[in-house]
Amino acid sequence: VNILFVGDIFGSAGRRIVAEHIGHVLESNAIDLCVINGENAAGGFGITPSIADDIFDLGADVITTGNHFWDKKELLDYLKVPADSHGRPRRILRPANFAPKTPGFGVYESALPTGQPYAVVNLQGRVFMQQNDDPFRKADEMLASIKAKVILVDFHAEASSEKVAMGWYLDGRVTAVLGTHTHIPTADERVLPGGTAFQTDVGMSGPYDSVIGVEKEAVIERFLTGQPAKFEAAKGNPKMCAAVIECDGATGRAYRIKRVMLGE
Amino acid sequence: VNILFVGDIFGSAGRRIVAEHIGHVLESNAIDLCVINGENAAGGFGITPSIADDIFDLGADVITTGNHFWDKKELLDYLKVPADSHGRPRRILRPANFAPKTPGFGVYESALPTGQPYAVVNLQGRVFMQQNDDPFRKADEMLASIKAKVILVDFHAEASSEKVAMGWYLDGRVTAVLGTHTHIPTADERVLPGGTAFQTDVGMSGPYDSVIGVEKEAVIERFLTGQPAKFEAAKGNPKMCAAVIECDGATGRAYRIKRVMLGE
Amino acid sequence: VNILFVGDIFGSAGRRIVAEHIGHVLESNAIDLCVINGENAAGGFGITPSIADDIFDLGADVITTGNHFWDKKELLDYLKVPADSHGRPRRILRPANFAPKTPGFGVYESALPTGQPYAVVNLQGRVFMQQNDDPFRKADEMLASIKAKVILVDFHAEASSEKVAMGWYLDGRVTAVLGTHTHIPTADERVLPGGTAFQTDVGMSGPYDSVIGVEKEAVIERFLTGQPAKFEAAKGNPKMCAAVIECDGATGRAYRIKRVMLGE
Amino acid sequence: VNILFVGDIFGSAGRRIVAEHIGHVLESNAIDLCVINGENAAGGFGITPSIADDIFDLGADVITTGNHFWDKKELLDYLKVPADSHGRPRRILRPANFAPKTPGFGVYESALPTGQPYAVVNLQGRVFMQQNDDPFRKADEMLASIKAKVILVDFHAEASSEKVAMGWYLDGRVTAVLGTHTHIPTADERVLPGGTAFQTDVGMSGPYDSVIGVEKEAVIERFLTGQPAKFEAAKGNPKMCAAVIECDGATGRAYRIKRVMLGE
Ligand SMILES: [Fe+2]
Ligand SMILES: [Fe+2]
Ligand SMILES: [Fe+2]
Ligand SMILES: [Fe+2]
Ligand SMILES: [Fe+2]
Ligand SMILES: [Fe+2]
Ligand SMILES: [Fe+2]
Ligand SMILES: [Fe+2]
Repeated sequence: VNILFVGDIFGSAGRRIVAEHIGHVLESNAIDLCVINGENAAGGFGITPSIADDIFDLGADVITTGNHFWDKKELLDYLKVPADSHGRPRRILRPANFAPKTPGFGVYESALPTGQPYAVVNLQGRVFMQQNDDPFRKADEMLASIKAKVILVDFHAEASSEKVAMGWYLDGRVTAVLGTHTHIPTADERVLPGGTAFQTDVGMSGPYDSVIGVEKEAVIERFLTGQPAKFEAAKGNPKMCAAVIECDGATGRAYRIKRVMLGE
Repeated sequence: VNILFVGDIFGSAGRRIVAEHIGHVLESNAIDLCVINGENAAGGFGITPSIADDIFDLGADVITTGNHFWDKKELLDYLKVPADSHGRPRRILRPANFAPKTPGFGVYESALPTGQPYAVVNLQGRVFMQQNDDPFRKADEMLASIKAKVILVDFHAEASSEKVAMGWYLDGRVTAVLGTHTHIPTADERVLPGGTAFQTDVGMSGPYDSVIGVEKEAVIERFLTGQPAKFEAAKGNPKMCAAVIECDGATGRAYRIKRVMLGE
Repeated sequence: VNILFVGDIFGSAGRRIVAEHIGHVLESNAIDLCVINGENAAGGFGITPSIADDIFDLGADVITTGNHFWDKKELLDYLKVPADSHGRPRRILRPANFAPKTPGFGVYESALPTGQPYAVVNLQGRVFMQQNDDPFRKADEMLASIKAKVILVDFHAEASSEKVAMGWYLDGRVTAVLGTHTHIPTADERVLPGGTAFQTDVGMSGPYDSVIGVEKEAVIERFLTGQPAKFEAAKGNPKMCAAVIECDGATGRAYRIKRVMLGE
Repeated sequence: VNILFVGDIFGSAGRRIVAEHIGHVLESNAIDLCVINGENAAGGFGITPSIADDIFDLGADVITTGNHFWDKKELLDYLKVPADSHGRPRRILRPANFAPKTPGFGVYESALPTGQPYAVVNLQGRVFMQQNDDPFRKADEMLASIKAKVILVDFHAEASSEKVAMGWYLDGRVTAVLGTHTHIPTADERVLPGGTAFQTDVGMSGPYDSVIGVEKEAVIERFLTGQPAKFEAAKGNPKMCAAVIECDGATGRAYRIKRVMLGE
């Protein structure tokens, strides 16, 4: 089973660069399952149902999010669908360790057209981030009820320590633990000894002539003055950052992870 | 001018893997200036004068540090040397934006045997880290008095946003801005438009079968229980992570940055 | 039912000043139930079984703790007793929203000699503190299984917002929500409209010629230099800070809260 | 010299309760100098020039602020006046340790109608707050150039440790160090041995049936769900919280501090 995971799509530049490359990436890697983190797809801040549709149209089977989940209020109602439904709203995940009342779900389980079962899990870290439930314990809980062997985890977290710890914690229990949120790809992709593909951060799919997606002048001004400023999505130098994972469908163990970075 | 910058050496495994590779790296890249971050060289926590000597013996011209600067008390006295001295104690830097009273210096300026002037600057970030002086303003202050054109900046920081912002802020004013501290190399090395080589994090030179250098079991246990635990340096799967920068000695502008990751 | 709650005992000076005054306070207020936060009783850092014994000997029925729970390793084994036991180890609480594996318990339920049932709950905040489970949801869970009407909650937290929010959240459901951890008593004690006595922070029972219990010179030096320093418990100007709550035993609703601050 | 310092005025309820009581407080305490923290005067978020006028009309000689300084953009231009001016814009302070470029000033020095010189200093803490310059070093710098002996410091900070440390640090060098920002008054007001009046937090002048000024339902909902919510200023149970300090005009040393809390 070949899986493509695309890192945080940031604004229109991110959507455009992914649209430009994804067809070729899906085809040349014979991708069976495509998961895209879309938490910054709407101008850098959140995702709307309509932009989610665009991302599904690009080929995403499941869309994950993160701390920007809350940014677009219209999404929250859109996600109020039954747990056992399979339409697009059900395929947009939010971190599973958000408060239980949060709209939406943190895991999606289904099967590929070939009949291959799979699950996608979205979790968020706690170090240097908002207060949430323990993602490690939450992972244990979820894995206890997931039946699929092929399981992809998007761990949306800030601290490298927490992300690497999660990789080791889930090694041998899931197909891949892929970090998101720092918006910079790391060069440490590997298959851990237990057969779990890991990368600390897949990196943003967005404009790299920026400060993690945002117009750099505004961010620098804020660092210099402390004055809150309106942050606009940058446009320059877009790159699609992603990971391609190959795994055994029967066991769910990965045997290869490849880093992808494609620009103009 | 060819520069080698080696990311945070972590414990004995890190010292050993750097010792194994550095001779070849220095030679094959015709390195003129070698800077090594040694903040975790002593068992993962700080650096002692004696371990600093070992690192100088490996070929370092200057050693930088970071938040672990304080870990070995004997270092603090060792660094009490005149600002205009050039011995080894003067070549061990601590972040320049620590409080003014802090022992040691945050910049070292000298010339290569060829007569080529250079400076090394050590700064630390503030986002998700200890309280320190503003590193952006501090950089401005320092650059106003540095005469060399070839200037390498080790920006020891946690947040990708702060590191990327510093890269842009200093673009065209220094030779390289190289991030350290997260202990995971990033795959975003590039020469910015103004001629400054940049990489969000060079990555640790240490044991990668670990959680950012530390025995993984202890860190995972701490995440699971919240109980403080003794952290020991791991040994497994050591890698040397570094960046090689080529620049014009007259202008100080970089024209190439190459990521290096060497294991057993 | 009359309840005495004594704020964080800090070091030997705190133990001494409480010993000096508590007999009189217990008697003059006809106290039925005495709860003492002892997280800093051992030299400012944690509590040992032996120091806990001293505090029980002073009249405490239950001892609560907080983030310093982990400081004395010998305590952790001491607390491994059955949930339905009633000996002293069972009467030393740690925040209930620590990870489930944590030794000890976060609630103690029993009855006074008069037959009056009561419960003591220990919770810790999350804002500006370590990562723990949601204290609000945890409170709901615990209240669902507590049978007593007289319920005292020690909410060990940093942020005034989180503490005040907890007071309102539990108003009408518990007898008192008393804040600890900042080591400074607040002057906002009141009975909320639903009948819950509240004080944002009861304040430390310890040496006030200090920085929240610690020798002030060391703390100031740390603020000035950033250098980690050994913190010693101060001795000067000890005060016992406490709250006296009067409530209806049948309903558990408080009708009075009185702030107590007693020095030499 | 008698000084009145009023804690953070929060919204219209805060402005109203201060208006109701301040005349009597000024008169009965024969106040010579009146300083009011107004950072939350405009609906809880910042202060406008027009609301500042209202507060000056109530009798304030100087208005201090804090982290909410940035909330009303119109204030920033209003404060662009010469350092040696004495009009109302010059009498609205922002923390002195904000970045140097920040509009406005962090100290105001003048004389009472009696000819008595005085200065008001506004500083902000760094623990659990935004990154700013070191307030301790900044205080040293400012005191070196202030000529007045009567000096009132509003230290706007979150952590009790940082506030208490500042009190001790400035003891004997200023007339009073008064904490603001937690919005809850502390019961630890005292004159320190060197003659500096101190109170960890003066408390908010605003609606106490709230979570530190904000409608409590919204704040509780946010703690429960993590969902960002619009925060509205509450109205219920307003109280004016303040401190009255008596000092010697010649030496600037305080000999008395009295806590004030006045409701409906
Ligand atoms: Fe993102
Ligand atoms: Fe994110
Ligand atoms: Fe490091
Ligand atoms: Fe570091
Ligand atoms: Fe405490
Ligand atoms: Fe505490
Ligand atoms: Fe305020
Ligand atoms: Fe504030």
